[in-house]
Amino acid sequence: MKIRAYAVAAKGEILKPFEYEAGSLPEEQVEIQVSHCGICHSDLSMIDNEWGQTTYPLVAGHEVVGTVVAAGSRARRVKAGDRVGLGWMAGSCLACPQCLAGDHNLCAQADQTIVGRHGGFAERVRCHWLWAAPLPPQVDPAKAGPLFCGGITVFTPIVEFGIRPTDRVGVVGIGGLGHLAVQFLNKWGCEVFAFTSNDSKREQILKLGAHHVVNSKDAGQMSKLAAALDFLIVTVNVPLDWTALINCIAPKGRLHFVGAVLEAVPVQVFSLLTHQRSVSGSPVGNPRNIDFMLEFCARHGIAPQVEFFPMSRINDALDHLRAGKARYRIVLKADF
Amino acid sequence: MKIRAYAVAAKGEILKPFEYEAGSLPEEQVEIQVSHCGICHSDLSMIDNEWGQTTYPLVAGHEVVGTVVAAGSRARRVKAGDRVGLGWMAGSCLACPQCLAGDHNLCAQADQTIVGRHGGFAERVRCHWLWAAPLPPQVDPAKAGPLFCGGITVFTPIVEFGIRPTDRVGVVGIGGLGHLAVQFLNKWGCEVFAFTSNDSKREQILKLGAHHVVNSKDAGQMSKLAAALDFLIVTVNVPLDWTALINCIAPKGRLHFVGAVLEAVPVQVFSLLTHQRSVSGSPVGNPRNIDFMLEFCARHGIAPQVEFFPMSRINDALDHLRAGKARYRIVLKADF
Repeated sequence: MKIRAYAVAAKGEILKPFEYEAGSLPEEQVEIQVSHCGICHSDLSMIDNEWGQTTYPLVAGHEVVGTVVAAGSRARRVKAGDRVGLGWMAGSCLACPQCLAGDHNLCAQADQTIVGRHGGFAERVRCHWLWAAPLPPQVDPAKAGPLFCGGITVFTPIVEFGIRPTDRVGVVGIGGLGHLAVQFLNKWGCEVFAFTSNDSKREQILKLGAHHVVNSKDAGQMSKLAAALDFLIVTVNVPLDWTALINCIAPKGRLHFVGAVLEAVPVQVFSLLTHQRSVSGSPVGNPRNIDFMLEFCARHGIAPQVEFFPMSRINDALDHLRAGKARYRIVLKADF
Repeated sequence: MKIRAYAVAAKGEILKPFEYEAGSLPEEQVEIQVSHCGICHSDLSMIDNEWGQTTYPLVAGHEVVGTVVAAGSRARRVKAGDRVGLGWMAGSCLACPQCLAGDHNLCAQADQTIVGRHGGFAERVRCHWLWAAPLPPQVDPAKAGPLFCGGITVFTPIVEFGIRPTDRVGVVGIGGLGHLAVQFLNKWGCEVFAFTSNDSKREQILKLGAHHVVNSKDAGQMSKLAAALDFLIVTVNVPLDWTALINCIAPKGRLHFVGAVLEAVPVQVFSLLTHQRSVSGSPVGNPRNIDFMLEFCARHGIAPQVEFFPMSRINDALDHLRAGKARYRIVLKADF
């Protein structure tokens, strides 16, 4: 069966209408009718083949919300008619040590939604049943798409590293991921410091739930935070003064990367040693944590702040994101 | 009251007999008659003022075993006649967040045994009662000194980061610290990989409890360990191929530094991200973990492998260590 979509045919080109033959539905997969799809910076990286793993033509899009329209005979947990979300991961082996431990996002054989297969800038998209996450009725499906990549990427380390409501925490970069991290951490009970170099975002960031807004380029503000933060999540993918940020980490605290910073980070071992600090990173999240995130959003009224574009205007939407104008995430509404 | 000791008077000089006036004993302190004192690489770093924090004349020595000969009126837990050990830390404030949480080794106001004060290359040495650790009767006092710096430095991360007996773990550098790490991890129940570039140590290392000995300069052996180790503790203080070592870390695993590597470690964020890896460091350990270590040593018959020198031959002992010949730790016997 043909699926209509928007694809980039080669590096540097704009997206154009595209159709592909999806074949029969594998028995462990489900097919989702896309109602909305967020745009993540990783979509741009894949469209531009920044990571050298793009297969053209590429249908990007991995922050999908939609309705299951077909389920294979061995699909579990979701069925036709269910509203679901789909993120970066579209399949895992279920049998490796990571899958057995529930960390299906760390499966070395995982299918990634837009790596070597087609994603959610389309009328329909497929995935293994494991990665079609049921949407609670209290979560607005129009805005939920960004939770499935941006959201779970920042929610995961909060859970995985045992961040406590008594902790002082920080978020570096208040964009698509960061504006969700601030909301999560506020409702988690923490004291939240938002780091931005853009003072014009200050009032908005306080409204999101930050208790303090710090200009990361102001050495005076930074030095006041020496050894102050138990957890600092870095959502940007550009080089910063990492030594200054590590110096903000409290004894036993952690600087955690979720952005794909391409340049090596020079870590001073003494600065880890003296304060028992950790530096770490993590990719998206596992299915159980996605469920927890959705429940947490439902309970606390957390939602991405989004700007809508019809999917037919996808190139305008991509330009808006490239220009750094998205506040804070763009969601495409399917209009095939 | 005068204390006889061995001191270095200025950078580059040999140690010479030295006496200093210790004054009256502060009421929270105890005075220890030194029977044995290990020599740690940090003693050399301090003697040479490598870290820029040495005050000359310096009496180094911070792996002390001895008997309490005097206790201040407000000393707790230990009393005159008790056999105790003393390591890098000699006092903590007891009131900061780290002390309140039991992490007295992370106290920013901590007194360090040989920083701005005199240590254990002496007939007697003083410390706050908190840092005089009672020695269980099953632990051989002649060999125990190295536990109080080298030992606790490698024991601490095993406890603090929840290393499990089901984990595959590694130790980089099989010297004073590493030979203790191998023994601890073997008795902890783990599968232990010892990394060394010195093939001649192979049989000895297997006897210490390693299940595998890996030549860290053999790319073939290293590549077989890709993503294999849950925990890898680095005990050396020289630059290695950090990227190759990080690549050995399993999903959710940790590369942990306890050696004072002075050059920045270039960390590839992608390699943290994709496997949810951590890189961290820690300094010595807290009093509760010192007690646990001593109990663990008593239960499992773990002891440092040491070479003895009389303290009067301290310069010969330092030369032996500088030449890389110590197997695996030198202990000085006080002979004043």
